[in-house]
Amino acid sequence: MTGNLFADDQVDLSVLKERALGMRWAGMPEGTIPLTSADPDFRPAKEIRDAMTEFIRGGYFPYAPDAIPGLRESIAKALLARKGEAVPPEFIQPVDSASACMHVIAASVLEPGDEALIFDPVDLLFGISSRFAGANVIYYAPRREGGRWDFSDLEAHITPRTKMLCLCNPHNPLGLLYSLDELRVIAETAAAHDLWIMNDEVWSDIIYSERPFVSINALGPALNRKTISFYGLSKGFGLPGLRAGFLYALNGDAFAAALRRGYELAAGVDYLTQVAMKTAFDDCWYWVDAFVKHLQGNRDYAAWRLNAMPMVAAARQEATFVTFPDIRATGLTSQQFTDYMFEKQRVALVPGTVKWFGPGAEGHVRLCYSTSRAILREGLDRIETGIHAIAAAR
Amino acid sequence: MTGNLFADDQVDLSVLKERALGMRWAGMPEGTIPLTSADPDFRPAKEIRDAMTEFIRGGYFPYAPDAIPGLRESIAKALLARKGEAVPPEFIQPVDSASACMHVIAASVLEPGDEALIFDPVDLLFGISSRFAGANVIYYAPRREGGRWDFSDLEAHITPRTKMLCLCNPHNPLGLLYSLDELRVIAETAAAHDLWIMNDEVWSDIIYSERPFVSINALGPALNRKTISFYGLSKGFGLPGLRAGFLYALNGDAFAAALRRGYELAAGVDYLTQVAMKTAFDDCWYWVDAFVKHLQGNRDYAAWRLNAMPMVAAARQEATFVTFPDIRATGLTSQQFTDYMFEKQRVALVPGTVKWFGPGAEGHVRLCYSTSRAILREGLDRIETGIHAIAAAR
Repeated sequence: MTGNLFADDQVDLSVLKERALGMRWAGMPEGTIPLTSADPDFRPAKEIRDAMTEFIRGGYFPYAPDAIPGLRESIAKALLARKGEAVPPEFIQPVDSASACMHVIAASVLEPGDEALIFDPVDLLFGISSRFAGANVIYYAPRREGGRWDFSDLEAHITPRTKMLCLCNPHNPLGLLYSLDELRVIAETAAAHDLWIMNDEVWSDIIYSERPFVSINALGPALNRKTISFYGLSKGFGLPGLRAGFLYALNGDAFAAALRRGYELAAGVDYLTQVAMKTAFDDCWYWVDAFVKHLQGNRDYAAWRLNAMPMVAAARQEATFVTFPDIRATGLTSQQFTDYMFEKQRVALVPGTVKWFGPGAEGHVRLCYSTSRAILREGLDRIETGIHAIAAAR
Repeated sequence: MTGNLFADDQVDLSVLKERALGMRWAGMPEGTIPLTSADPDFRPAKEIRDAMTEFIRGGYFPYAPDAIPGLRESIAKALLARKGEAVPPEFIQPVDSASACMHVIAASVLEPGDEALIFDPVDLLFGISSRFAGANVIYYAPRREGGRWDFSDLEAHITPRTKMLCLCNPHNPLGLLYSLDELRVIAETAAAHDLWIMNDEVWSDIIYSERPFVSINALGPALNRKTISFYGLSKGFGLPGLRAGFLYALNGDAFAAALRRGYELAAGVDYLTQVAMKTAFDDCWYWVDAFVKHLQGNRDYAAWRLNAMPMVAAARQEATFVTFPDIRATGLTSQQFTDYMFEKQRVALVPGTVKWFGPGAEGHVRLCYSTSRAILREGLDRIETGIHAIAAAR
């Protein structure tokens, strides 16, 4: 029975108000609805919790290996079966969180003074990891035409100093997928300039029914000679607090290059988290599928509600559980809009500011809907009340 | 009742042979006794396991904060009460393992081309972390006279490029403590040359009854303006697989400098590990004390047995649960001795090679005695058999 795993009464606020400190329930004034961090309001699959409890019952926590027996194979099997990515198990490395993957990859392939080409808007960690490695960030805002990407001007942003191109697939915060042809343009452009590709597939489980997920790795090894991909279990499996992720490549050279700096001392994965990862990949796809089904209902509901509001325009996501409505018609900046909704309507959002998503995010806010329908409804009711108040005040 | 927590029957080989993959039970041919990694063969305190199980029962694993509520205060309280270190809670940062602390500190304070001054011998991670940051490692082998350190030639190893001095207190693998006067020489020398001190107190719980542990931080803030300390829960609390550690400083400038690079993306501590850390510091010192009592018996037993063997000389440790006997009289190198004991006597040791401990370690092997007396006895029996065979063959 998975049908009611995501019912309204499955969100246990008594626990979340203690634990969810990352800009969510426990980090907010009482009464505020947090539609902020991409932090699911549902318990992860029971099998994961049971496996961890059983491990603790065994009692020992010795030094963890780079990968517990069978973990690489479990991951490789799922990458192939669910995402069409044929990755040799030996080129998969568990790493403590997706953000640590970004740190390790950037530190390994970038040198001070290099340029990293980063989509605008996109998640802030691409910029942070590239700058940590001493690189300069060059923003690239691809055109989108009829819902599709147009990468025809990508090459114009590449200079002799460009060393890495960052791909977020699916795209956060836009919630968009890429076609194989679109990915081919990216891969061929990168190959022509001998660039590394840092390929973020953290969101690749949250895919809605209209379009399938396609990985750049589906183009095969020749076009992905310098592609280093990574994944985290925070989104699809609802495990952000375990710091569970891995990086991978299609060939040994790229894999070795990815681990050149920053992995050895700092990025191994603790034993219990590895146990959780293996259980998730072996036994818990049913949970992911049920979660996505629930989220698709939330996605449609949020798009319907937001687009019914004056001065708000929301696209319908192909993937991810965040929406990124355009609020420019309110006349407020992203920060002003977010502050107003937080202070007056008690609903928390992430502003589309340079800090969070790059300069191209201005005029938008990000809303996360990985919660129950009832909480989402209440949050949207408050936003609607706020929008009408803003409209009346103009 | 803690009296029998460390009895012979408390070592559960059925679990260890599955889990202890880090050069110990699960990473060895069947029948080999591993006296290798500093990985305790005893289950950690029940309170820690119970708190983790209870957290899992709550079900959620949201993004973890930098420190869960009260964790910094629990650590500060213990540092003061048990080690005489007065550290403001706000200058304590949980980090996922002591090795990650070393990475973060070295990456934050060193620039390419700087020199890091490292004791010889000492644990290999000082060199790895310093080199990761692009620094050159300068080995320094302090003289020891009558069991005490002589740092009178320390200053001669400092050049204009020296930027950081690494202190391992207690010292691994020598098992030695430092007096306040000895630490003052180090602190004053570092201050005179404006050096950072990376102060490793990972072993500071495993202190035997003859001499107390003294921290360099006991010299107070003025002499520790640029001291950054760190600690991990792998030794005293027996939790290596949880990747639990923290770094700390006596003042805000040093604390901020320590986190300048490498922490933000890669070194946060997962939620369950923070729960384990807080429980350990709040409730489990009784376990540490009982563990040390058991270890002191093992220490005495190992010293007695080793010194009774021909061609072996073993000092008695003031701290740590490793011993570092001198085997030069066998005529074998550290590697040859270790290989022989592993292949012919089925007892595994860590060779005193450059890779593990620096050039000054040659002629020694490291033996870890964080196991039951019965297993230690069997391991020492095998070494003794081997020693007699080596003697007979000469």
